[in-house]
This record gives sequence, C-alpha cells and structure tokens, in this order.
Amino acid sequence: MSERKGLIIVFTGDGKGKTTAALGIALRAVGHNMNVLIIQFIKCLRSVGEVKVSEKLKPNYEIIPMGSGYVFDKKKAIKERIKAKEAWKFVKEKIMSNEYDIIVLDEFTHTLNFEFIDLNDALKTLLNKPKELHIIITGRNAPKELIDIADLVTEMKNVKHPYDKGIKGQRGIEF
Amino acid sequence: MSERKGLIIVFTGDGKGKTTAALGIALRAVGHNMNVLIIQFIKCLRSVGEVKVSEKLKPNYEIIPMGSGYVFDKKKAIKERIKAKEAWKFVKEKIMSNEYDIIVLDEFTHTLNFEFIDLNDALKTLLNKPKELHIIITGRNAPKELIDIADLVTEMKNVKHPYDKGIKGQRGIEF
Repeated sequence: MSERKGLIIVFTGDGKGKTTAALGIALRAVGHNMNVLIIQFIKCLRSVGEVKVSEKLKPNYEIIPMGSGYVFDKKKAIKERIKAKEAWKFVKEKIMSNEYDIIVLDEFTHTLNFEFIDLNDALKTLLNKPKELHIIITGRNAPKELIDIADLVTEMKNVKHPYDKGIKGQRGIEF
Repeated sequence: MSERKGLIIVFTGDGKGKTTAALGIALRAVGHNMNVLIIQFIKCLRSVGEVKVSEKLKPNYEIIPMGSGYVFDKKKAIKERIKAKEAWKFVKEKIMSNEYDIIVLDEFTHTLNFEFIDLNDALKTLLNKPKELHIIITGRNAPKELIDIADLVTEMKNVKHPYDKGIKGQRGIEF
C-alpha cells in the first residue's frame, strides 16, 4: 500500500497557486537533486521568473515555454493548436525517456478543453507512464476523466484576488 | 488603482499546494533577482528539498525552519509556543528591515490558531509592513480576520490525496 509510486497530480480551480504549486514541487525536487522538466503549454514568455531562474538550477531544472500566448482569438487558435500538438509529441517522448523524476505540464487542461490535444490519447499516455515518474498537470477546469485517473488533486479556489480591485499582476508574484 | 503594492497573500485550506505555492512564488521571484526570506513555523527539518535547494539560490533565497515539529502533544506545545514567539520576534525585525522583497510565513496560521502568537499583534504588524513588501502566509484554517486584511486568498481544497489510499508522502513532492 505504501510503496514508492510516481504520482499523477492535478492542480486545478480558478484561484492563484496552480502553476506556483507545481513550481514549488519542482524547487523541492531540485533540492534533492531530482530532475525536473516543465513544459508550458499556451504560455510563450521567456522573461518570466520561472524561466529566468533556470540558469541557477541547471542541470536539474529545465523549463520550456511551448505555447503561443493563446487569447481566444480564432486565428490564434489555429496557431496554438499546431504548437500544442508539437509540444505534446515532444512531451510524450520525454515521458518515455526515463530522464526525469518529475514532468510538469503547465496549463495542459486548456489544450484538452479546446481539443487541441485528444483527451483519450492524453489519458492513455498518462496511464502508461514509467512507474516512478511523477507528472503534474495544471490549469483551470480539469476534465473529469483526468481527475478520475489522478492520484492527487487540489482545487485552488479563488477567495479573493487583487485583480478584482484592479491591481495588475506583479513581477515575482504572477510571472 | 493599478500601482505597485506589496500584497498580503494567504494560501489556506485542507489540500496540498499551500507551502509549494509559496515556494513557487519564491522561485519566480529569485528568477527576477528579488530577495526572498522564508520562515517555517512548526516545521524544523533541514533535510527537506526547500532547505537543501538554498545552496543553489543564495544569496536571493533564504529559508529558516524555526519550529520544533509540534504534533498536538501537551509537553511539546510548551516548547512550540516558545519557538513560535522567538520566530515571531525575528520575523517582525525582518519585516521592518527592508532587506527583502518577499517574506513567507509558512504554517503561520497554526501559531495563530493555537494562540502561540497574538492575532491582533500579527494583524497590526501585517498592516504596518513596508509598502512594497509582499508577505505570504500559509496553513490550514486561516482566521477570518487574516482573510479580511489579505489582498489575495486562495483556498487549496482537497479533492483527492494519496494519503487516503495509504500512500506515504514522497521525497520531492511532500518534503
């Protein structure tokens, strides 16, 4: 019952803390010299803190923004779909590579909800992952089927957010 | 309305991701060369990932476990109260020092709920913090008064946790 097992972890919900909780696990793991790969779907910025910090944490910490910054625009959706499919092909190879202890799929739920990536293919890939690999998935509205196969699921519920008061996202906190 | 302002952030609830979300913000901030101090209340272990990683992130990332590992034992409560008061005195000096961009008070809610630290003193200190300093507080059952003065509050809600299936906490994920 208590043997070592790579977990499927899902951080979902409308509150702040999904990506940062995944990043915090990455930080912990790097402290133990474990190898972490973070693939950012949708996101494309290299100027954010979690990318800039990789200089200090390599070779254990690798992060690749592979999205195109999708913002619900029809033309952009076509581009994002192509990007997501490319990223997913890359992720599948990395999952089977045995190079990593933890792989984070940041904002992955959106690619499933927009049907950029086939849900059944994603579920099958997760269920067939190497036994000891932990996979962390973040993003709003995680599909029920994903929650069903996950080992650990937290819903980050927004109680209060400065956006509500018109305060912009800040360096170090939101990016 | 959108000016730069140091936030009071609270991560509470019964789900996984409170401490790790704070650690993830720390990681982001260090990527921007901001200075982060993490004080761990209750916790006392130096062998955990978030402490061990500080070698790689100094001088921007400083973490000090200042608890005694309290586990609801009457004798231990006396020791934990003393430790919490010492830590709180230290934190108050650090808050006013202007040395940090972000200060994390990990598991701080417990010290308030057990009345190791006076809630009114805590609220007053937070309200009088330097304007640009971000303070992040984690722990279950955040008092209502704390939520009232906070700018950003997320409730981490447990949907599913491997403990429920008897799977133990794992290196890199839980510590």
